Amino acid sequence: MGAQQVLTTPQGAMRQNNLARVLRTVRDLGPRSRARIAEETALNKTTVSSLVTELVERRLVTEDDEGTADRAGRVGRPGSDVALDRGAITALGAEINVDYLAVCSVDLSGAVVAERRVGLDTAREQIATVVDCVVDLVEQVVETSRDEGRGILGLTVGVPGLVTMEAGEVVTAPNLGWRGVPIVDLVRTALTETAVTVQADNEANLAALAEYDARRRRVSDLVLLTGDVGVGAGLVIDGRLHRGHFGFGGEVGHMPLEIQGAQCGCGRRGCWETRVGLTALLNGLADLHDDVLDPTLDVEQRLREVVRRAEAGEPRTLAALEQVGTWLGIGTATLVSVLDPGLVVLGGYFSALGPWLLDPMRRELRARTIGHDGAPTEVEVSALGVSAAVRGAAQMSLEAVFDDPTLAPRRRVAASGTPEVAHV
Amino acid sequence: MGAQQVLTTPQGAMRQNNLARVLRTVRDLGPRSRARIAEETALNKTTVSSLVTELVERRLVTEDDEGTADRAGRVGRPGSDVALDRGAITALGAEINVDYLAVCSVDLSGAVVAERRVGLDTAREQIATVVDCVVDLVEQVVETSRDEGRGILGLTVGVPGLVTMEAGEVVTAPNLGWRGVPIVDLVRTALTETAVTVQADNEANLAALAEYDARRRRVSDLVLLTGDVGVGAGLVIDGRLHRGHFGFGGEVGHMPLEIQGAQCGCGRRGCWETRVGLTALLNGLADLHDDVLDPTLDVEQRLREVVRRAEAGEPRTLAALEQVGTWLGIGTATLVSVLDPGLVVLGGYFSALGPWLLDPMRRELRARTIGHDGAPTEVEVSALGVSAAVRGAAQMSLEAVFDDPTLAPRRRVAASGTPEVAHV
Repeated sequence: MGAQQVLTTPQGAMRQNNLARVLRTVRDLGPRSRARIAEETALNKTTVSSLVTELVERRLVTEDDEGTADRAGRVGRPGSDVALDRGAITALGAEINVDYLAVCSVDLSGAVVAERRVGLDTAREQIATVVDCVVDLVEQVVETSRDEGRGILGLTVGVPGLVTMEAGEVVTAPNLGWRGVPIVDLVRTALTETAVTVQADNEANLAALAEYDARRRRVSDLVLLTGDVGVGAGLVIDGRLHRGHFGFGGEVGHMPLEIQGAQCGCGRRGCWETRVGLTALLNGLADLHDDVLDPTLDVEQRLREVVRRAEAGEPRTLAALEQVGTWLGIGTATLVSVLDPGLVVLGGYFSALGPWLLDPMRRELRARTIGHDGAPTEVEVSALGVSAAVRGAAQMSLEAVFDDPTLAPRRRVAASGTPEVAHV
Repeated sequence: MGAQQVLTTPQGAMRQNNLARVLRTVRDLGPRSRARIAEETALNKTTVSSLVTELVERRLVTEDDEGTADRAGRVGRPGSDVALDRGAITALGAEINVDYLAVCSVDLSGAVVAERRVGLDTAREQIATVVDCVVDLVEQVVETSRDEGRGILGLTVGVPGLVTMEAGEVVTAPNLGWRGVPIVDLVRTALTETAVTVQADNEANLAALAEYDARRRRVSDLVLLTGDVGVGAGLVIDGRLHRGHFGFGGEVGHMPLEIQGAQCGCGRRGCWETRVGLTALLNGLADLHDDVLDPTLDVEQRLREVVRRAEAGEPRTLAALEQVGTWLGIGTATLVSVLDPGLVVLGGYFSALGPWLLDPMRRELRARTIGHDGAPTEVEVSALGVSAAVRGAAQMSLEAVFDDPTLAPRRRVAASGTPEVAHV
């Protein structure tokens, strides 16, 4: 990978901003000429020409007659169309979760290029083993991209816990049993074959980003609820992820909803997840020796069994689902009273049980939010399901490039004038 | 007022954006030359020169040798400093509240030029009377500005209720007894002497904007809690007001905190304001025939009596304050679990009782939020107190100009070349 340019001058920062403006213009408005970009951005034509040339060198855009050079020796004529280069680079996402690991790569437009997923009882493994498995999957996905001649731009790792983005550290991920794990350093060190920028984020944030991206033209404010043993939310506000001041934004599983409620795993009482977490559901519908309670069995398998019982009309299962749906509505009423998002998306384990959860949830939500009688908040089941977080992770890696195109290394131009692909 | 320019072309929108960029650059970074602005915005020099000339004509900026013209006949030399024009225009804010009306004007930098405040038992008056009183105060404040030769740029009216900004309508303001009041139309029609752009917003939103502005360099995410009979919040997220999808963002007084709680004025049970609203406090500390419960007495007078009793160590008063403080902490723990703001500001009636509310509130907040043990969310008492909303309203009128400088009418230039002030 080319050495990353250090921007210490205002001029450097300004150029970086302008590169980003041109790249986003091409992404959001479609292929267009240099002249039109200059008009629309109010940057002067010489500046735009130089910016486009740099974006071509960084393999982020193409021009439709890229081969020809104009009189000044610049690639591309002023009248030719500048478009996103979908074939040259990929960005990577990874997800470390309680039951599985996943990795995917996307092209510059966000389309999935390759995807891998393996089951793993993560909490029972050494952290080093988990990291090795993730890196293995990454190398597999990267190989696909290398075979296609693509460069790799960045890797974002999603974790079900609190992550400090600056330090790249998992402060705590209770359901993995992790505390103070420098995940970014560990992954970067283990990635001996591929040198890329690595960052980490909370999986609910990443899933929210993916759901937002999948609906980009419809809602700029959404809450993604994700549930497993723990319950969390990813918040997109005004088109951007909201992480909060200390990074604890969306820790909704621990909203204190009942002063004298049940004991929570966090040591407090009456947290929302004591009512809507997976454990609450399973304890509600099964006796002690029921297989559905066996934590050594795969979660998806156990959820399929819950679905089977619900479809068969088993009364206790239906009652437990009704109860979880009701409490989903009560807690969501609080979220709506604070944020009033345009959309609430049910992800995580909830997404498998939508048909039974949505009705009681919507009923409570309507009854307990003020002023929404005429137009209640929309609730939808995630379309991406368990893929949401890993897709969002790759999307996050892409966003870094759209914020700072200089993260993409320049391709060296050989003496003959033929561009030579830099190995990244 | 000059006819507002209708922007139908992309070029018009682009020019408006560029005017805003130049104006914000001067506001945020201080006085600077046209050449420096061109460098920093990457706009070409001819464009910047034309933009600055237009901003001068719109009386939004001055140049330090404004009188001289360069060879091309433009006002100002390229090397002279462009600065905000603090003497030429003012923006207006008004607040309609349960016990009083207030109006203020600010200059382009946000400094208060004039302020008026009168007591009024608003809910008992005809809406037309209330509007006439507000307009009276506006005309008084405008007169001060006119005497100083200033133009008036816009008026924002704050109301303790749900306001749709597009329609300029108060959908509901329960404590005023208003429902479906077209406040913007009413005020605009009554303003026979002064034609300005009028808009309306929720008073908690406006108060939050003012608190944000007063701390601009410290926190970009804050929650302003405001309390009277009702309790609400204004949310600043990432430096911007968050109103929510339907405009119900910050309706935190109706978060359902207790499933079997007390009956709320809204008809539901267990809403937060049944624990922390002014009525809850007063009922907790006084018997039925205590004057402090008399709703015909001025709220500030009653609060002074509460403070007197607390300072005298009256046990029942202290217990009631402890109880409200505790529940402030419990509800704020929920807000923090969702948003994790950098700062919570106690406004409204809470601001008068900070010394007794802060300790129990901070104790509960610390005990009931996950992960914040080391760095709990900061809580402060509002420094602006009851002036916050009206200040924020004027600030909001200003923001409109910083978003679209073409809202400021051009000053006509007479044949002699001497600028003539447009009457606005």
